[in-house]
Amino acid sequence: MTIVEPSLPNKEKDMSKWYDEVLSRAELIDIRYGVKGFIVYRPYAMEIIKRIYDAFEKELEKYNHRPALFPVVIPEKMLRKESEHIKGFEGQVFWITHAGYSPLEEKLALRPTSETAIYPMYSLWIKSYKDLPVKIYQSVAVYRYETKATRPLLRGREFLWIETHDVFRNKEEAIRQIEEDSEIFRRITYEELCIPFLHLRREEYDKFAGAVASYAFDCLLPDGRVLQIGTTHYLGTNFAKAFEIIYQDADGQHKHAHQTCFGIGISRLLAALILIHGDEFGLILPFSFAPIQIVIIPIPKKGYDHEKIHNYCLSIEKMLREKGYRVVYDQSKRTPGDKYYYYDMRGVPIRIEVGPKEVDNNMVTLFRRDKRERITIAKEELCTKIEEISEEIKEILRKRAENKLKSNIVEANSLGELLEYVDKKIPIIKVPFCGRRECAEELEGETLGYETRGYVEGEKAEGKYCIICGREAHHIAYLAKAY
Amino acid sequence: MTIVEPSLPNKEKDMSKWYDEVLSRAELIDIRYGVKGFIVYRPYAMEIIKRIYDAFEKELEKYNHRPALFPVVIPEKMLRKESEHIKGFEGQVFWITHAGYSPLEEKLALRPTSETAIYPMYSLWIKSYKDLPVKIYQSVAVYRYETKATRPLLRGREFLWIETHDVFRNKEEAIRQIEEDSEIFRRITYEELCIPFLHLRREEYDKFAGAVASYAFDCLLPDGRVLQIGTTHYLGTNFAKAFEIIYQDADGQHKHAHQTCFGIGISRLLAALILIHGDEFGLILPFSFAPIQIVIIPIPKKGYDHEKIHNYCLSIEKMLREKGYRVVYDQSKRTPGDKYYYYDMRGVPIRIEVGPKEVDNNMVTLFRRDKRERITIAKEELCTKIEEISEEIKEILRKRAENKLKSNIVEANSLGELLEYVDKKIPIIKVPFCGRRECAEELEGETLGYETRGYVEGEKAEGKYCIICGREAHHIAYLAKAY
Repeated sequence: MTIVEPSLPNKEKDMSKWYDEVLSRAELIDIRYGVKGFIVYRPYAMEIIKRIYDAFEKELEKYNHRPALFPVVIPEKMLRKESEHIKGFEGQVFWITHAGYSPLEEKLALRPTSETAIYPMYSLWIKSYKDLPVKIYQSVAVYRYETKATRPLLRGREFLWIETHDVFRNKEEAIRQIEEDSEIFRRITYEELCIPFLHLRREEYDKFAGAVASYAFDCLLPDGRVLQIGTTHYLGTNFAKAFEIIYQDADGQHKHAHQTCFGIGISRLLAALILIHGDEFGLILPFSFAPIQIVIIPIPKKGYDHEKIHNYCLSIEKMLREKGYRVVYDQSKRTPGDKYYYYDMRGVPIRIEVGPKEVDNNMVTLFRRDKRERITIAKEELCTKIEEISEEIKEILRKRAENKLKSNIVEANSLGELLEYVDKKIPIIKVPFCGRRECAEELEGETLGYETRGYVEGEKAEGKYCIICGREAHHIAYLAKAY
Repeated sequence: MTIVEPSLPNKEKDMSKWYDEVLSRAELIDIRYGVKGFIVYRPYAMEIIKRIYDAFEKELEKYNHRPALFPVVIPEKMLRKESEHIKGFEGQVFWITHAGYSPLEEKLALRPTSETAIYPMYSLWIKSYKDLPVKIYQSVAVYRYETKATRPLLRGREFLWIETHDVFRNKEEAIRQIEEDSEIFRRITYEELCIPFLHLRREEYDKFAGAVASYAFDCLLPDGRVLQIGTTHYLGTNFAKAFEIIYQDADGQHKHAHQTCFGIGISRLLAALILIHGDEFGLILPFSFAPIQIVIIPIPKKGYDHEKIHNYCLSIEKMLREKGYRVVYDQSKRTPGDKYYYYDMRGVPIRIEVGPKEVDNNMVTLFRRDKRERITIAKEELCTKIEEISEEIKEILRKRAENKLKSNIVEANSLGELLEYVDKKIPIIKVPFCGRRECAEELEGETLGYETRGYVEGEKAEGKYCIICGREAHHIAYLAKAY
């Protein structure tokens, strides 16, 4: 019996519905846990997440970062030490006030981010310039009492990330780290996950609480809104002063250290991976992140010896397993059509179909999930072909997503022009901008919700004027609606 | 300048002091975080922890477990659903009562263990016998408001573990899982981490809250106390009834599922690894868990071309790196003696010393951390030798620890005999036992703190009588002081 499932909603027209359906049908996320903003990561999601974590951790370690783990609880007095920081987070903190049958002496915050947990320890560990640089990351969940509507993976009250916290002798080294962070992010997000993004310096009024400068990575979702998937901050000596991170330099002087931190939004990267690459059949996954890379499906035929098909499938499975691929040979009694539906939904990159024709001719029929194309090749070419396809998939997904992003950015040089683009629902609009909060607020009002997302350093605004106040433009701002 | 550090205290005589010194000198754990029972895992500890996690996760996956992640918060009403369970944990729960500026409608527990977070979801996911078995693990921190004295890694209020939660059609399958869990635990703990342990069925009055039967893995620490490093429980249908985990069987009947859970104490396994294998020079690590497996140390000599030594070291480093080993070539200006001290403390399994003699004769001098022996071999034999040594280390560490465990178990058949052994401070004493709580309490009183840790299933007590009440013995109980 073939289970006929309704096809997915159109992703471009109703992203939200498409997304909910895919999360549920591919058994990725369960939203029925019963606490607002807290979701359950089901095995298939977790198997992808673990690979995303692994890719970033390896890349961070390549650049001399080391793992560490700091407590999930932060004493209230620590959280309050850097005054800008607490202002930014106070409204979002979950508080532990009781344990067992008694109230605690001091209430404890669940980490919303870990500067105030980590930097008191850095103050103990760092004494001399010889102790620097310190480059540490931790892979953890963080907790923020979001008051905006929560959406699974996009905005939750518990979300997964990696945070790095690095300490340097001076500004130059810290700025170099900011650049290195961008390169690490690009290497995995763009090259491996095939997610293109804008790399924007956030406006002054939009910085991370306590930072000197904030940079963010925004990707574009199919509904035209952007999603911040990573941030990297130059903290200057703000936290070093609050937490007394002081080292004795080679010249004998005691100096405040310069710090950076870098957040990689693992939950959001999974959301982006699902939303950007998926289609009406479900997920499309890059080969190296797919929990199942290859599925083998036997296509029985009446009057043809099934044992022959079975043995042929087994031989292919064995060959692929020996090559180290994650392969499933689906011997269940469901129809081939049901199986196609099931593995398509889960984004399995390559399907191998084996019927009498393949067995008799020592051939293999391959179906590629990304292009939805079938090819038939000789069995002995299989491994070479798979290697070839696994690379091609990345190029195709990257190019598709990149074209999408590029074709959705326009530049407006007057308010009138801007409003025309807004009317046409162009997702990302560049405008000359003075950099002041008042004008940003007016822009948001005029456009019914486009925020200033920051600017690309080096993109010139010479001779241009802020389209709101007419002052000389400081830069070209990127406007977009955002999650 | 050679830094002369005092040697470590004697581990057998003053384990506690030895332990604190090693945690600090090897830069494993920092206890100065400022919240009782919460510690900081420094990079060197975390690099070992990640490998322990990885080893267990791979083994669990080999047996068809899949990763998942459930929220850290558990609503109070869920935690209260299974009546025995909440009785066992209520006094130990951290409560989140506020978020932002307001009290929460329902208070949330920080997970002390995850049965009550996971099983409501299982009740939604499991409908038919075709959905079974479910075998899921999660690698997380758990939170328990311990009232006993806390000790880093041994007993904390935040500790790392893996928990599996499996669901089956019937008791037989569940019991088979309990056996499989033991095998998984043995494979990694005994074979890879080289930590021998007792596998004990816990007494009825000492079961996990809500379980039908509890089994635990206890290892022996140098101070003569035992440490529970893992547990596996047959839950029967207790939780299935409380959380309505009901499936329709092949016969059409609706039945309560049978469940098991399995906890692997990752923090405690790190403690055991440190305490059981270490010596007066610091850590001793099995080769595959060592963050640095091999260190190359140049031994300069006056009048000998240092460049020649340097190039020779580089060639060794390159060769070992190509083989995939984690190798450090320490070119710093510290003296060889300082370097020996540093890497010995961190348990680096193999040290390669390169001086003029080695360069001139195309030889390599190897120092093994486990046996503290030096051998000199031809350079081309190096990789083969390393492979050999890495296996030998495991055998040596395992045998040492196993002899220690075995030689510290005695059997007493009367209270008098028991008290003699207690006087002699024998760590583990076996006695015929009726299985009743009253007698256990009397035993603990008489021995000033030996607890009944359970019994080995299949170890016969026929014809023997409880050494307290004289009733027929139900089994041979293992008594020990415990963490």
